[in-house]
Amino acid sequence: MKVGFIGLGQMGSAMAVNLVRAGHEVTVYNRSRDKAEALAGEGAKVAGTVAEACDGEAVFTMLAHDDALSAVVHGDGGVLASLGKGAVHISASTISVAMSERLTKDHAAKGQRFVAAPVFGRPEAATAAKLFVAAAGAPDAIQTVTPLFEAIGQRTFVLGEEPKSANLVKLSGNFLIASVIESLGEAMALVEKGGVDRHAYLDLLTSTLFNAPVYKTYGGLIADRKFKPAGFTAPLGQKDIRLALAAGEALNVPLPLASLPRDRFLTLLAHGGEELDWSAVGALAAKDAGLVE
Amino acid sequence: MKVGFIGLGQMGSAMAVNLVRAGHEVTVYNRSRDKAEALAGEGAKVAGTVAEACDGEAVFTMLAHDDALSAVVHGDGGVLASLGKGAVHISASTISVAMSERLTKDHAAKGQRFVAAPVFGRPEAATAAKLFVAAAGAPDAIQTVTPLFEAIGQRTFVLGEEPKSANLVKLSGNFLIASVIESLGEAMALVEKGGVDRHAYLDLLTSTLFNAPVYKTYGGLIADRKFKPAGFTAPLGQKDIRLALAAGEALNVPLPLASLPRDRFLTLLAHGGEELDWSAVGALAAKDAGLVE
Amino acid sequence: MKVGFIGLGQMGSAMAVNLVRAGHEVTVYNRSRDKAEALAGEGAKVAGTVAEACDGEAVFTMLAHDDALSAVVHGDGGVLASLGKGAVHISASTISVAMSERLTKDHAAKGQRFVAAPVFGRPEAATAAKLFVAAAGAPDAIQTVTPLFEAIGQRTFVLGEEPKSANLVKLSGNFLIASVIESLGEAMALVEKGGVDRHAYLDLLTSTLFNAPVYKTYGGLIADRKFKPAGFTAPLGQKDIRLALAAGEALNVPLPLASLPRDRFLTLLAHGGEELDWSAVGALAAKDAGLVE
Amino acid sequence: MKVGFIGLGQMGSAMAVNLVRAGHEVTVYNRSRDKAEALAGEGAKVAGTVAEACDGEAVFTMLAHDDALSAVVHGDGGVLASLGKGAVHISASTISVAMSERLTKDHAAKGQRFVAAPVFGRPEAATAAKLFVAAAGAPDAIQTVTPLFEAIGQRTFVLGEEPKSANLVKLSGNFLIASVIESLGEAMALVEKGGVDRHAYLDLLTSTLFNAPVYKTYGGLIADRKFKPAGFTAPLGQKDIRLALAAGEALNVPLPLASLPRDRFLTLLAHGGEELDWSAVGALAAKDAGLVE
Repeated sequence: MKVGFIGLGQMGSAMAVNLVRAGHEVTVYNRSRDKAEALAGEGAKVAGTVAEACDGEAVFTMLAHDDALSAVVHGDGGVLASLGKGAVHISASTISVAMSERLTKDHAAKGQRFVAAPVFGRPEAATAAKLFVAAAGAPDAIQTVTPLFEAIGQRTFVLGEEPKSANLVKLSGNFLIASVIESLGEAMALVEKGGVDRHAYLDLLTSTLFNAPVYKTYGGLIADRKFKPAGFTAPLGQKDIRLALAAGEALNVPLPLASLPRDRFLTLLAHGGEELDWSAVGALAAKDAGLVE
Repeated sequence: MKVGFIGLGQMGSAMAVNLVRAGHEVTVYNRSRDKAEALAGEGAKVAGTVAEACDGEAVFTMLAHDDALSAVVHGDGGVLASLGKGAVHISASTISVAMSERLTKDHAAKGQRFVAAPVFGRPEAATAAKLFVAAAGAPDAIQTVTPLFEAIGQRTFVLGEEPKSANLVKLSGNFLIASVIESLGEAMALVEKGGVDRHAYLDLLTSTLFNAPVYKTYGGLIADRKFKPAGFTAPLGQKDIRLALAAGEALNVPLPLASLPRDRFLTLLAHGGEELDWSAVGALAAKDAGLVE
Repeated sequence: MKVGFIGLGQMGSAMAVNLVRAGHEVTVYNRSRDKAEALAGEGAKVAGTVAEACDGEAVFTMLAHDDALSAVVHGDGGVLASLGKGAVHISASTISVAMSERLTKDHAAKGQRFVAAPVFGRPEAATAAKLFVAAAGAPDAIQTVTPLFEAIGQRTFVLGEEPKSANLVKLSGNFLIASVIESLGEAMALVEKGGVDRHAYLDLLTSTLFNAPVYKTYGGLIADRKFKPAGFTAPLGQKDIRLALAAGEALNVPLPLASLPRDRFLTLLAHGGEELDWSAVGALAAKDAGLVE
Repeated sequence: MKVGFIGLGQMGSAMAVNLVRAGHEVTVYNRSRDKAEALAGEGAKVAGTVAEACDGEAVFTMLAHDDALSAVVHGDGGVLASLGKGAVHISASTISVAMSERLTKDHAAKGQRFVAAPVFGRPEAATAAKLFVAAAGAPDAIQTVTPLFEAIGQRTFVLGEEPKSANLVKLSGNFLIASVIESLGEAMALVEKGGVDRHAYLDLLTSTLFNAPVYKTYGGLIADRKFKPAGFTAPLGQKDIRLALAAGEALNVPLPLASLPRDRFLTLLAHGGEELDWSAVGALAAKDAGLVE
């Protein structure tokens, strides 16, 4: 397929490379052009404008937040203005439910198709084409882009015909990860202050009931207190918790647990943690307990 | 080995049977004698008193809470008074850190040995001899009773020489499970109110980052809203969260997340939930959101 | 002074009447004209458009939220387009800090002056000209409109030269009130379930350390469980807590206590509480405790 | 009246002096005798044992916690063993509801009378005989000791015939104070980081809706960040929140707000705050926000 890719951060670059490797004709665009050019050697065509990345059957966007996405979509020469009739905009970014609703309407008005397809997995998984894709949208549109999902992920979950369902699920998933980080942070602070080695403790957990990637990955980062370099930064984590809370607010669903990482993120950012991995909030319970400064 | 077993609830009965099957000579005691007699057919010897269950090399206790354990240990003809010099009391109950410290001292004063060995796993795992044993105590005592652990569980984790370390780890583990229940309850309420099927959602979670027994077991119960019969009742769950909070208090470790299930349990009990499985607190977020009555 | 007044809800109408009674020449505007005409008998001039209300030395706006205010200010024939050079826009609404910053810039660009002057007090206080005015803005602008503040309130607090400071203080004040509501709701549930009469309890509180209007007013509403008619509705309360949390987020200030009423409001709204007074969240603790349905 | 007084901390000493000044014949006892002797100059008789302080018509106890009280009451030569038939034990300490129930039974079994009469007010109020007394117990017992209450306080509230009601009300009152401390701590952190002077802010609050002693007293301490010397120490505050939570637990009443100061106290104590006033938890929000170290 002929496909564009806009937004070449850690995640986006890895996904674009895997699209190329799967045999698709990929045109990449990034605001700072050097990241796009870095992919030329992999076989991607470098676009100088958003519009150039929109002349295929589909275009991915993978951007940091609603505003960045909206700038690329709604601006002059943006995705809305440039994408062909019937072509598919695949939004892989983690965005708000409200933005997803807006894009669904905007693309429909232009005769374009819109699929929300946020992904689960950290940069290592993106590089290995092992992402999980949570997709929602009109069945025909999903069908059209399924080969693209197969190129970047190990499995695709179709969550319904309304794109926003996929965004809601993605946000809820990041909320669940943040819950794991907070709970592990508290549990480790407790046992460590009680004299138990936190690595031995994590080994017990992940060998038994908590034998899942999320406990191994985040538990390891917290036990090692290794929050740099970030696989996913604290400001991005904060954004996602904010969006989960906002989605809950729009639906009148209280989320008391989500407010805990919300406040942890603000504490972290108030103390200069912008560049840390979001798992760094898992060290704040130890700080409160006087175990670390 | 010649071993006693005191406390024949769902978990204790299953563990005692597995000790018999592994070839040990097991004398069982329960306050209401019928539960003990039910094991006679399995080959266990039925004791009429606590003391009779204490005449071997080791005795297990598996009771619902500190008070029940203390009654059995400190009472007239109790474990302390009856156990031989050098024999081992294995406390498999989930008890407070403070009670574990007290028993450590009391047994030492009598020349007896004390091992804390709480277990992870629900009744099905106990029946299948697939428990995980979290053990702590003097190395020689642990070594003595290791064959017993092998009879009831799939793996033993040794957490140090102070018995209380194992109790702290067990309480922290139940806190982590309660955190999973609360987080799943909130996440499912959110996506369900947003139009996503909660079983499909759980399938996505447990096929990806949350591919662990704890998410499958409790997620299934919450998605099915099937809280009877209880594998582990709400009052027991409440007790463990209280003990985790108390352990945190003794060590000056704040546990903000633990207060959420704490309050959920009280709400559940205020509405007649004594006999429900503790995962029923995972339905309260849906209740707050107006999804269920 | 010649002054306009836009937004004639319960609070706005009472404030406009007091301006008339103090001798000012008041032109009133409301989207649904009947509320404006109701003030004609008091001596107010009725405007047919926003612009007509903007031809004096100052214009008040008293609207329910950011969007309503922005529609009136930024729309065609809006306040920005209509107000004279040097005239003062007094925003008495409880709005976001972000909107206050935006209006400060927009009016400056037009050569107009902007004062934020949110008020404390319920409708009874507005009627009695007993409001407290929390004002911030350029000193000359504050000075110009001080006679207007004197007509509507019993005391004006000047909080600095940046209008947004007054908005932040107002939001924090509503957060403090919500904290009182939540704490009283919990305390009353506790003592009532323990057998103490909640009215006698409130009498003790408000005769001693808690001898303040906020405890008397809200404590009375909660003890009486009288949440209709609303002096200030639950959706407005929810909005203000959201704005306080948003202000905290923009400044990296965690506000754990604010998340409690946040979630209470959502629970209330999920159960049809749109028209209740915001103090109705003070009954939810009793509901959790099984005291009321 | 002939009355004993056991427990001569800051509060107890001031109360005992006021009893002497009101003309009562007061025998004082304290574990470390020097504090008792300091009152000899005021006209109190110094007791060498608990029993000596129990030979009048009534005896006050004012001790730091359940254990200290129980040691004095249940020990050899304690209050239970020494007090005459029909004499009244007035427990002014802030103790658990469970301990109050136990003392009610124990005294009844001995033919003695028991009144719970915890007090509201800090040491300055105790010195000025301006305490508020929250009393509960059998009407005849209350009547007997009313002159004593009049000597130490400005008003007595009778809360029922079960002594524990007064203890519950006292605990709930301290929970409300802790809620004020937490809410003010958060609100001040918010406005201060937004550029508003915290003393000016407190002036606004306490001149308007929050015109109550509790806001003035605690707001002043927080705004001044003056937490030494302590009028009421952090460990005592922590104890009371623990007892309030325990009372809620026994009654199945969730108290989500109480868990916030609970965790704040642990954080404070984990960082060496044992000797600070309990209002020091009001500075932790500012610490989280990066305003103070």
